[in-house]
Amino acid sequence: MDLLKDRISKDGEVLSRDVLKVDSFLNHQMDVGLLDEMGKEFARLFCDVKVDKIVTVEASGIAVACFAARYFDVPVVFAKKHATSTLTGEAYESAVYSFTKQTTFHIRISKKYLKPCENILVIDDFLANGKAALGLIDLVHQAGANLMGVGVVIEKGFQNGGDILRKMGIRVESLAIIEAMNGHTITYRV
Amino acid sequence: MDLLKDRISKDGEVLSRDVLKVDSFLNHQMDVGLLDEMGKEFARLFCDVKVDKIVTVEASGIAVACFAARYFDVPVVFAKKHATSTLTGEAYESAVYSFTKQTTFHIRISKKYLKPCENILVIDDFLANGKAALGLIDLVHQAGANLMGVGVVIEKGFQNGGDILRKMGIRVESLAIIEAMNGHTITYRV
Repeated sequence: MDLLKDRISKDGEVLSRDVLKVDSFLNHQMDVGLLDEMGKEFARLFCDVKVDKIVTVEASGIAVACFAARYFDVPVVFAKKHATSTLTGEAYESAVYSFTKQTTFHIRISKKYLKPCENILVIDDFLANGKAALGLIDLVHQAGANLMGVGVVIEKGFQNGGDILRKMGIRVESLAIIEAMNGHTITYRV
Repeated sequence: MDLLKDRISKDGEVLSRDVLKVDSFLNHQMDVGLLDEMGKEFARLFCDVKVDKIVTVEASGIAVACFAARYFDVPVVFAKKHATSTLTGEAYESAVYSFTKQTTFHIRISKKYLKPCENILVIDDFLANGKAALGLIDLVHQAGANLMGVGVVIEKGFQNGGDILRKMGIRVESLAIIEAMNGHTITYRV
């Protein structure tokens, strides 16, 4: 998606060979016009897929999942990272290791909002080592729902998450795949 | 907003005199059609106000803030509750006490995304004791930005957050104000 790649190249900050900061338009300050275009693009990429619900994880996946959901005309469910007083009753739960924070956290979705045979599209802002996506996919499988694909805004192609998912036979569509980051130069996979 | 009140009465669960669970359509599973109508309603309520940016707090404020932002055609900034590796540089920070979780957490917005003289509309999903809203307002004031108002999806009118804000001279617009919850009966302020 050229609009996104141009924006990453213009406003993204490469903090190291691994860390890209896009908090001016994606995950702190958010450009809702761009998010809307991303949602439209996910709908185009997955136009041949039956989608009943979009699943993401709080917090920075929520916005892009919502804009995509407008085009699919389906609800969004976001996995919670923290136990809450109102997430009573039973929930599906999966452990996710965060390399960034070097800690394991648990993501949960209430069993009321993931049902057997529902067709689920997973959407998230980043795909790096794939741990968060695998956690969401685990929740989908625990529910007996059908994983229809994974949509990602920015895939770090130099990390192995995308390979892991694709080798599992999962359809992954990324709006931008970064092959390498070197100083101020970002190279995209074509 | 009758559409919202009807939905709360239909799908909300009163867990106690204080706790209302709306996770089937607002803060776990999300009805994006309803969220879009809420965004439109905030734009109508604040149509006489100059808004440059919408500020909310992760996670459940993000979706409604984004849908409102579409109608105002402005960016959203969400305050982060957790220190992140990419929130480098200086940030405005405020302490927020959570009665639900009985703990104090810190919310932060990068100084890059809140500037003096920006006209800020604060939007959140719930207003109860007002602690989260006061934290966001504190960040706005620290930045020297202008607080133009606070938009809330569900105000618990039987708690004092709304009174506190209004007595401070802050314009608060709530899409639904709950006067009392008693068993299965929810009474709205008219």
